[in-house]
Amino acid sequence: DPQGRWMDGLLLDHTEGQSFLTEAFKVILEEVLTKGTDVNEKVCEWRDPAELQLLLDLELREDGENQQQLMQRVRDVAAYSVKTSHPRFFNQLFAGVDYHALAGRFLTEALNTSQYTYEVAPVFVLMEDVVLSQLRLLVGWGEGDGLFCPGGSASNMYAMNVARYRAFPQVKLKGMWSIPQLAVFTSQESHYSVGKAASLLGIGLESVFLVKVNQRGQMVPEDLVEKIELAKSQGAVPLLVSATSGTTVQGAFDPLDLIADVCENNGLWMHVDAAWGGSVLFSKKHRQLMKGIERADSVTWNPHKMLLTGLQCSAFLLKDTTNLLKHCHCANASYLFQQDKFYDVSLDTGDKSIQCGRKVDCLKLWLMWKAVGTRGLEGRVDQAFQNASYLVDKMKKREGFQLLNEPEFVNVCFWFIPPSLRGKQNIKDYQERLSKVAPVIKERMVREGSMMVGYQPQSRRVNFFRMVVLSPEITLQDMDFFLNEIERLGVDL
Amino acid sequence: DPQGRWMDGLLLDHTEGQSFLTEAFKVILEEVLTKGTDVNEKVCEWRDPAELQLLLDLELREDGENQQQLMQRVRDVAAYSVKTSHPRFFNQLFAGVDYHALAGRFLTEALNTSQYTYEVAPVFVLMEDVVLSQLRLLVGWGEGDGLFCPGGSASNMYAMNVARYRAFPQVKLKGMWSIPQLAVFTSQESHYSVGKAASLLGIGLESVFLVKVNQRGQMVPEDLVEKIELAKSQGAVPLLVSATSGTTVQGAFDPLDLIADVCENNGLWMHVDAAWGGSVLFSKKHRQLMKGIERADSVTWNPHKMLLTGLQCSAFLLKDTTNLLKHCHCANASYLFQQDKFYDVSLDTGDKSIQCGRKVDCLKLWLMWKAVGTRGLEGRVDQAFQNASYLVDKMKKREGFQLLNEPEFVNVCFWFIPPSLRGKQNIKDYQERLSKVAPVIKERMVREGSMMVGYQPQSRRVNFFRMVVLSPEITLQDMDFFLNEIERLGVDL
Ligand SMILES: Cc1ncc(COP(=O)(O)O)c(C=O)c1O
Ligand SMILES: Cc1ncc(COP(=O)(O)O)c(C=O)c1O
Repeated sequence: DPQGRWMDGLLLDHTEGQSFLTEAFKVILEEVLTKGTDVNEKVCEWRDPAELQLLLDLELREDGENQQQLMQRVRDVAAYSVKTSHPRFFNQLFAGVDYHALAGRFLTEALNTSQYTYEVAPVFVLMEDVVLSQLRLLVGWGEGDGLFCPGGSASNMYAMNVARYRAFPQVKLKGMWSIPQLAVFTSQESHYSVGKAASLLGIGLESVFLVKVNQRGQMVPEDLVEKIELAKSQGAVPLLVSATSGTTVQGAFDPLDLIADVCENNGLWMHVDAAWGGSVLFSKKHRQLMKGIERADSVTWNPHKMLLTGLQCSAFLLKDTTNLLKHCHCANASYLFQQDKFYDVSLDTGDKSIQCGRKVDCLKLWLMWKAVGTRGLEGRVDQAFQNASYLVDKMKKREGFQLLNEPEFVNVCFWFIPPSLRGKQNIKDYQERLSKVAPVIKERMVREGSMMVGYQPQSRRVNFFRMVVLSPEITLQDMDFFLNEIERLGVDL
Repeated sequence: DPQGRWMDGLLLDHTEGQSFLTEAFKVILEEVLTKGTDVNEKVCEWRDPAELQLLLDLELREDGENQQQLMQRVRDVAAYSVKTSHPRFFNQLFAGVDYHALAGRFLTEALNTSQYTYEVAPVFVLMEDVVLSQLRLLVGWGEGDGLFCPGGSASNMYAMNVARYRAFPQVKLKGMWSIPQLAVFTSQESHYSVGKAASLLGIGLESVFLVKVNQRGQMVPEDLVEKIELAKSQGAVPLLVSATSGTTVQGAFDPLDLIADVCENNGLWMHVDAAWGGSVLFSKKHRQLMKGIERADSVTWNPHKMLLTGLQCSAFLLKDTTNLLKHCHCANASYLFQQDKFYDVSLDTGDKSIQCGRKVDCLKLWLMWKAVGTRGLEGRVDQAFQNASYLVDKMKKREGFQLLNEPEFVNVCFWFIPPSLRGKQNIKDYQERLSKVAPVIKERMVREGSMMVGYQPQSRRVNFFRMVVLSPEITLQDMDFFLNEIERLGVDL
């Protein structure tokens, strides 16, 4: 009895398994990809944690459930999850859906292999190499190295580790006690992963010097020079600058050429965290935002953000051609990286990584790129800029919307000033009252499920919204809806 | 014209996208899940790298391709990829397919969210918590902490970082220069990720003391005590022992209770790398292999290995109830972890991680567990032991197969002695000739595509096979086939 075998957990029956999978696929199509992308449906079905816990019945038990119950589980997970591909999801630096990328992801899951050796991942070893070299070409490098990492934070961490190894190769064996106190530099508005990396690597957060930014959030090169001098005066050896192309909140682009000059003058490793902004390299019109990028030593670039490949897809790119990545990380495990194999073992690239098993993250990007071409990806990037610029124009004309800055990128940061606060900038508790506006509007939109957008304070600025215009599936109508909806939700505040 | 929009890269048409996805799903069902699991089909379709490069036409171009060409791409990727769910794939510590887990993976991909806040991942924040606490219960802990990491290597690295932070919290801010030289301890046959973690964290490979193993590959507690003394005599502060439950090659289980005694006596953090062996905790019959596990401070456990969830699924589990994980890693980024949210922000668990975006890895395990129950998972583990023991019995009775040891687990390590070497142990170049056998047999099987199994040398032992019996879809017939096939491929050597 096949049901019996299912319940035994032995799951021998491929036919039955495939019919479950096919049913689940239908639910995915209907609930996640059709309803989940329909403007007339909610972007989220909010439940308070305690209520959701009850609804989902998460507990795991001695006995299994039947196929019908399990299909209901699939439906429930879909129903109460946030629809990140919904045209009114503006909450993170990812959104939208690309069906070719998604097909690549399903295929990746079904093939279930690990990106370490040619032996078990022949297609993906060759494919990763091609995709990385195409990304490097966009950076401006004819050769180099790299690998896909589990996220931009990991890629940034790789940069710091490789930079440290280049400067002090003994660190791999002897640890930090064998080398002088180091200093790394990044802007005040850079991503927090730079600090997390410094802590993890044993460099310490206090060795991360936060360089000042200007009003628009770009690193100030003069202050970088000062911070380098400061570090030296404290006896530390400057190691690396992590510049940002596309900061997380404001979407600012640090001036790479000027920073490269400073790095050259001081012999520092220049890393560019372009996790968010890197995709502008596809655009002839906008790639000047990253002018100077070819002078970097390493780059982090997350196609899972602006390019819609889906999580996770983060490239760590290196200019190096001396196999630094491998030397820095290799452990030469003989059970995996046998040297007496019958093919060219330099294809067993897994030892470049600090991971052992490594998910295949190249296929989704490769298949999407094959589908739309470099030109298509350019079109998407340009379209996102157009949408953002439309939104900015409308905001300028509309009462109650106050931009932080003229955006450089597709992050549109603004305060919504509710009617009760308009023209009252000079009253004593204005900032205090303004800071309470965004959280209330956010709560209302989430409870209604009408849209999702993030907010945050930043340095002396009280809570403001960060609207991210990203997916090419977004229309100008969605932009108009956004403005109306913010107003509707905040009109009584 | 919808085709026009596809080619523009704007991909607005959900209907067309979904029809591509549906076609791709059919290819996955046919090629990967049906043909790819059929014993009468090849486990791999070997091509030399240069030939495969030509066949796949990997290059990325200015223009996109049409849907038909793209579907051929999907077919090609499937055709030339290794079929890791094939019943004759014994090459890694993962294999087989579980259809519920796979449905969970497809749903995860389609929902495309990140495991950092309740706001964008309400279902998965609650679900991760439940799954981790069930895994902890199997370890023997009523409370604790943890998170899913991108692989066991990352989990082991977390352990080292958290142990360091508990002992020397100043390291997070001040780096390694503020703390004494550290020493960590792990067995000679432990996984190389322990060393990689030590290098990355700035502790250095030379601070990893490799504790001797006995003939079966288990850590020798007396030598651990000696190595701790040695480290102290060199002026280092002993920090952590990373014991292994299920070593990578031999599948050995370190004696946890004895190691726990040593850790207690010396105030050391006890980590157990149970990436591979952890799943024995499901089995009433075999869980005594990990006796003493509840005394550990932290555990790495990869359900993507023995439990068939698919890559990646690795749990890092902690006994700690003081929020050490959060204190150690938090950066309190205000754009993501706003403190003025309208729900309990302790549910925003992302700041425990060194990642920012984090893939959802709990759903596949949860859905599979719901499907087969704790009992079903136990059945699978027991079945793998039975298969291994059948194989061992057969090998003992069969000429030409020489076991390294009586296996503790489902790794069956053996030499195949070809007819020309039988009874010749005493000739001068015996070891040298024996070392050449496994690579030749491996090359032959891969070129034919008949099966895949790994080999390696280890300390003074020349190349031997590591047969891993793992998937519950494996039958005794597959075991017999394996023995016959090794013999067939090596009979003339
Ligand atoms: C500028 C920047 N760098 C790095 C990251 C981290 O990327 P991930 O979430 O993939 O770790 C982010 C995430 O938003 C980012 O905005
Ligand atoms: C004992 C042991 N620990 C850790 C790992 C690393 O796990 P992952 O490949 O998920 O990084 C492995 C991998 O085989 C292993 O065998």
